[in-house]
Amino acid sequence: MIVGVLGGGQLARMLAQAGKSLGLSFVFLSPEPDACAATLGEHLCADYEDETALANLAERSDVVTYEFENVPIQAVRSLSTRGPVHPSAEVLAVARDRMHEKDYFRALKIPTPEYAAVDSFDELQQAVAKIGLPAVLKTRTQGYDGKGQAVLRSPQDLAEVWTAWGNAPAIVEALIPFERELSIIAVRSSVGETAFYPLSENHHREGVLRLSLSRSGEAMQSLAESYIQRLLDDLGYVGVLALELFQAGDKLLANEIAPRVHNSGHWTIEGADTSQFENHLRAILGMPLGATSVRSPAAMVNLIGTLPDQDELLAVQGAVPHFYGKAERPGRKVGHVTLTSANCSPDEFDQRVSRLLTLANETELASHTFQN
Amino acid sequence: MIVGVLGGGQLARMLAQAGKSLGLSFVFLSPEPDACAATLGEHLCADYEDETALANLAERSDVVTYEFENVPIQAVRSLSTRGPVHPSAEVLAVARDRMHEKDYFRALKIPTPEYAAVDSFDELQQAVAKIGLPAVLKTRTQGYDGKGQAVLRSPQDLAEVWTAWGNAPAIVEALIPFERELSIIAVRSSVGETAFYPLSENHHREGVLRLSLSRSGEAMQSLAESYIQRLLDDLGYVGVLALELFQAGDKLLANEIAPRVHNSGHWTIEGADTSQFENHLRAILGMPLGATSVRSPAAMVNLIGTLPDQDELLAVQGAVPHFYGKAERPGRKVGHVTLTSANCSPDEFDQRVSRLLTLANETELASHTFQN
Repeated sequence: MIVGVLGGGQLARMLAQAGKSLGLSFVFLSPEPDACAATLGEHLCADYEDETALANLAERSDVVTYEFENVPIQAVRSLSTRGPVHPSAEVLAVARDRMHEKDYFRALKIPTPEYAAVDSFDELQQAVAKIGLPAVLKTRTQGYDGKGQAVLRSPQDLAEVWTAWGNAPAIVEALIPFERELSIIAVRSSVGETAFYPLSENHHREGVLRLSLSRSGEAMQSLAESYIQRLLDDLGYVGVLALELFQAGDKLLANEIAPRVHNSGHWTIEGADTSQFENHLRAILGMPLGATSVRSPAAMVNLIGTLPDQDELLAVQGAVPHFYGKAERPGRKVGHVTLTSANCSPDEFDQRVSRLLTLANETELASHTFQN
Repeated sequence: MIVGVLGGGQLARMLAQAGKSLGLSFVFLSPEPDACAATLGEHLCADYEDETALANLAERSDVVTYEFENVPIQAVRSLSTRGPVHPSAEVLAVARDRMHEKDYFRALKIPTPEYAAVDSFDELQQAVAKIGLPAVLKTRTQGYDGKGQAVLRSPQDLAEVWTAWGNAPAIVEALIPFERELSIIAVRSSVGETAFYPLSENHHREGVLRLSLSRSGEAMQSLAESYIQRLLDDLGYVGVLALELFQAGDKLLANEIAPRVHNSGHWTIEGADTSQFENHLRAILGMPLGATSVRSPAAMVNLIGTLPDQDELLAVQGAVPHFYGKAERPGRKVGHVTLTSANCSPDEFDQRVSRLLTLANETELASHTFQN
């Protein structure tokens, strides 16, 4: 079987790594000549809107999927006329626009921070008057890793931010005080089977994920599952879906969904019975889903901008490296490293996570404790 | 970094799968046009004796390794004049000839079953008179998976077997009664660091490995480590080395070594902190070795000849499939499946292993119990 993927980055690459063990082959469509997934399959190097390339991709593939939600929706629609594409173009239409996404949460009675669409300075003022400060102004589309966001803390910020904003359609959201950022990753197959991973606890800096920890047995698990179940069912979803949540007291507020494998689920490669990558492939191919239980509690540290000294990293006992084969560049995700707690005490686990965070230049996070 | 591999089968493929996560690239030299590793790197499709191809491989690679000991030794020697090759040609010279191998064990005071070289019918009769029956006649080179072997049970067998034997240089070995077949996998890096995996318990049928189980905490572990340590040290070995052993009472008798990643170590992908594949690469590249502890006890079932029904296999909870992308053919290893016991009781583990063995057509083995 051949799986086509829109995108050729690290998510496509890790899908292919998982897929090799299922005996699958891969074709990637991506405009980057140095796409890091390319060494794991055939690379159609073309723009996402290139109809010839899309036709080529569809023809070669038994099923098509995508690795990020900012792929042009027209490309997914075009592919859908030629063969199966999972997740669907309808899902993408929801997920790629923060306003549609929030309205959709609301329609399914999934709580969110307060929000309002904003297309003018007047609307921004009205929205902030209703929602209060602090708030955050976000582009409705194309935002990721904290890009396309501006925090509004005082009334004076509004004019300043809006002047710099340009004309991108925007949404303003209440910046709520929360205790933790969590995510839940679920999977639904093309024959309707569903499975849920244990929660991930996520730590961001400058809008970019730095650390995720598997958190099985949490009291919040069933509430998170009930929310993502509504999304899976209502969307008739096929594949892996990630739902990012804020925990505030005993409430979970939905932040956003990602219709794909998700950075906060990378720990599942070593930490769960079946990785999110393998389960995404099983799901879109209609195979039975794999078990999602935690094998041993795990932590995942992102490697951003540069790779740490390789020997120092590999010398951390139990750490499993994932280098993406990408050129180093400030802010770019060039790898991650996973630590499982199978063969160490809780204190050792904390020390090793801290060591990994230090190597990843996350000095502030490194001073926390994360015991599983 | 680019790793060159002589061979393009499943071992080369799994090396490359592991190596991708280390950010490595691969070049395979193998004469098979449909080499199953080829989709994970560049494939130089040529004979192993092809000097142009060997020069090409050496030129493209930072280090060269091989996936099987029946590669022509001249190819390894030729490559060694052009750049680093691990394990060395000297190691290969020992490992590829059963007589050299047994003499080497003896020189290092590693016990073996009794044996003798046999080049004529007279020598066969003399050897059997000394060693006794039952015994097994084996080709000195090129044997694997039970090929090139004949069992001698009665004096009448000798003439019959010898007539059919041809002229291949042979060795006759005592067929000792043993309780278990075990193997130990060790790794030594180019800077001299060593690590040992917990023992594997191996179950063969018709000379072919069917099932391996990780066995950590066994009383035999330290004895096995002491034997393989002698080999690593004396050979100045670099890479993963496997030593197959017979357990007879409180003795371990050496059967053979494999200077490479080994089928009985496939469970390390899911079951150990670092897989044998990743550690082989770390070793030949002089990186720090990864931890070898068992994360959770594991069982590996080979899929031979044909793949079982995919949906039935994937429906076994906790089973991780590894399909090699090879055409099905009687007796051919086309995949394996690993089960870890992280999320099941000992009884469930046994039931699931039995289920996998049944799916792999190992009905007799399936009735055993294997609790970890």
